[in-house]
Amino acid sequence: MLSSLADVVGSKHVLTDPDVLAARSIDHTGRYRGRASALVRPGSADEVAGVLRICRDAGAFVTVQGGRTSLVAGAVPEHDDVLLSTERLSAISEVDTVERRVTTGAGVSLAAVQTAALSAGLVFGVDLSARDTATVGGMASTNAGGLRTVRYGNMGEQVVGLEVALPDGSVLRRHSRVRSDNTGYDMASLFVGAEGTLGVITELDLRLHPIPAHRVTAVCGFDSLDLLVAAGRMFAEVDGIAALELVDGRAAALSHEHLGFPPPVAGDWLLLVELAADHDQTERLAELLDDAQLCGEPAVGVDAAAQQRLWRVRESLAEVLGVYGPPLKFDVSLPLSAICEFASRSADLARRQVRDSLPLLFGHIGEGNLHLNVLRFPVEREADLYAEMMELIAGCGGNVSSEHGVGTRKRPYLSMSREAADIAAMRTVKAALDPTGYLNAAVLFSPSP
Amino acid sequence: MLSSLADVVGSKHVLTDPDVLAARSIDHTGRYRGRASALVRPGSADEVAGVLRICRDAGAFVTVQGGRTSLVAGAVPEHDDVLLSTERLSAISEVDTVERRVTTGAGVSLAAVQTAALSAGLVFGVDLSARDTATVGGMASTNAGGLRTVRYGNMGEQVVGLEVALPDGSVLRRHSRVRSDNTGYDMASLFVGAEGTLGVITELDLRLHPIPAHRVTAVCGFDSLDLLVAAGRMFAEVDGIAALELVDGRAAALSHEHLGFPPPVAGDWLLLVELAADHDQTERLAELLDDAQLCGEPAVGVDAAAQQRLWRVRESLAEVLGVYGPPLKFDVSLPLSAICEFASRSADLARRQVRDSLPLLFGHIGEGNLHLNVLRFPVEREADLYAEMMELIAGCGGNVSSEHGVGTRKRPYLSMSREAADIAAMRTVKAALDPTGYLNAAVLFSPSP
Repeated sequence: MLSSLADVVGSKHVLTDPDVLAARSIDHTGRYRGRASALVRPGSADEVAGVLRICRDAGAFVTVQGGRTSLVAGAVPEHDDVLLSTERLSAISEVDTVERRVTTGAGVSLAAVQTAALSAGLVFGVDLSARDTATVGGMASTNAGGLRTVRYGNMGEQVVGLEVALPDGSVLRRHSRVRSDNTGYDMASLFVGAEGTLGVITELDLRLHPIPAHRVTAVCGFDSLDLLVAAGRMFAEVDGIAALELVDGRAAALSHEHLGFPPPVAGDWLLLVELAADHDQTERLAELLDDAQLCGEPAVGVDAAAQQRLWRVRESLAEVLGVYGPPLKFDVSLPLSAICEFASRSADLARRQVRDSLPLLFGHIGEGNLHLNVLRFPVEREADLYAEMMELIAGCGGNVSSEHGVGTRKRPYLSMSREAADIAAMRTVKAALDPTGYLNAAVLFSPSP
Repeated sequence: MLSSLADVVGSKHVLTDPDVLAARSIDHTGRYRGRASALVRPGSADEVAGVLRICRDAGAFVTVQGGRTSLVAGAVPEHDDVLLSTERLSAISEVDTVERRVTTGAGVSLAAVQTAALSAGLVFGVDLSARDTATVGGMASTNAGGLRTVRYGNMGEQVVGLEVALPDGSVLRRHSRVRSDNTGYDMASLFVGAEGTLGVITELDLRLHPIPAHRVTAVCGFDSLDLLVAAGRMFAEVDGIAALELVDGRAAALSHEHLGFPPPVAGDWLLLVELAADHDQTERLAELLDDAQLCGEPAVGVDAAAQQRLWRVRESLAEVLGVYGPPLKFDVSLPLSAICEFASRSADLARRQVRDSLPLLFGHIGEGNLHLNVLRFPVEREADLYAEMMELIAGCGGNVSSEHGVGTRKRPYLSMSREAADIAAMRTVKAALDPTGYLNAAVLFSPSP
């Protein structure tokens, strides 16, 4: 099989060095470890399709790898797999400023797309902390969200065209130039969020947006989470809302203590609000803030430097949450009405198991998409808390994955968010497109009994 | 089979009167005629599933019927089918004003959803002329667009939950209460736009929106279509854009002549623009209109009465286009850069075939979604023009269906908008969910060779 793979991608793009394979077979937390037989780096959609055909015919499993930033072990091989890396699918087209789109290879990083958009005077609608490493192929496969979802939607809403190598070794191309299209099934939506189980996304046409000429940012403090949620609910529907981020006041205090960033305002719960539009929003924001029940004066930033300082309270979290070692992370989606209940019950749950643990909440309040990070919780005891937390989420009417996907980590809990007939239909689609089940077999579905 | 069906839905809901069946077996233009063996009216998702199971086991074909407003013969039986009407799936829930959604049966009319939303102080994001007859089930199945797409998106973007009876007689339920959800395949997106070929949508959770507090409307005249398209391109990205409708000046003149509505402004091409937001947009609209190259002063409406008068130039088209008998209708999607070329070449095409014919263009310019209506074109000669027009659309980089779907009418042209591997993948999904192909067999796909 290796020589056939080399015939397709060139021998220098078939790697079998055990150290390389070992490094590529664990997730970034080191908790999930698998085994791989080779790493292949195809350079085009046709090469990807060729690799898939050879692996399928040889009975080999294939795991697709982009930036490997998955927080749910979405790219860890389970069966001595061939690792298919998208790193050489790295082309970016000229930006089409009329139709406002750009075509990129699946292996292009989010940061590279953002840069290309900005140089053409446009903006890409998705932003998240892993921007330098995460690839747009992986982000489409997991339908990633992030900091701008409240304005532009998730990754799927940016995808206007797609090229996918299918498990049977054919290549599906859908590079429509039009904005409106009702000719048959929305196959693109099927591959978005499928976590690579139905095909390998090789190229994407991505929507770009005009850069809002005016932007105003505020950080507000609240005495209680329910007052913050009420304000968030109001802001989520405001024209021009550009970001709406919840930060636990204790996380802001940790940033102060460990990174030296004082929180911009006092408050047990902080809300970062940004409005952006083609006309000035400062006055409008002030009016809206008057309607919210803050616990003090908000900190408002009207220029880029001030805005960057305000954003630090949110952006520093990625670093500060690791001060006590890797935190236990939960990415959950909740009805707005259940957020307060979840916050208090999840904290109780964590502290009941480990008295000294520190549960901190942040996230994208506009979509009810929260990230619970439990600090000071020993790795060896996490399995129990994980299961209980999933039960709690489901009990609150929430969803076990909001923007990180299911991966390997959450596949035992899929049935908490999808009913049996729904999962059966998903499996039917999977079996139709990948009858032998060799593609990304470790994610999404639990192994059949 | 009929007695089994009666056991499921009750005998009074199994109709076999030949007149009823004949009336239900033609499309509204009278050009597509089929045959049906019975009309069944199930009253719940489980009854729909029961009907499907019986028909599948009996080898009967099933055609689903909602409001039967399809413009592409989307509900005409071809095989002596059982007609499955959604008319008894007519419940509407209380509006949830916190999560801003409402749950409705598939057979509920668009107008009923709009009314329910308005009584709760909210607005539904889709509007189209067939509002009193079109059902939300059919609209989701065809991913209908309409007059508000530039602001709120198509029907699919309003669907946040779905209940679908599958061809195997199971019922898939997905009534998520959360806004953000990444647990597995986006099955809802697969049923939206599938034209009933993958299952029967029985119930929908629909997103509602706040009513914009301020609204301002203008009708502008242009000397040429390319100036109008340039203005449309600018307006399409403006924050608060709420409608962007192209009207052929000759169509406006016909409204004047036949219905007594004088056009609000002079111009070969008219553009209706509406901005709506939570704050006043009048000044903003005036600024934007200054940047566009109108051929005279725009007509601006700031109150509801004036706005209704302005909308008449667009709303009257449904009636006025029929003054010379049923027009030949094309629903097409074009890249913005190809609209002018299409307008002139399509007019040439029609007049080359029938010298006296009158091609009129209108539609949703923000999405490049145009409706070409050819008046004074004899029905018996339409087949040739249809095929040539489809070729022209494809040649312009456009799409053969923008918001009306494929139905029976356009299935010979599907391959102009979808590549072979794409159609093959669609057929694979269809075969997986409906192996015998009994459900809505007349639409979307051409019969296998």
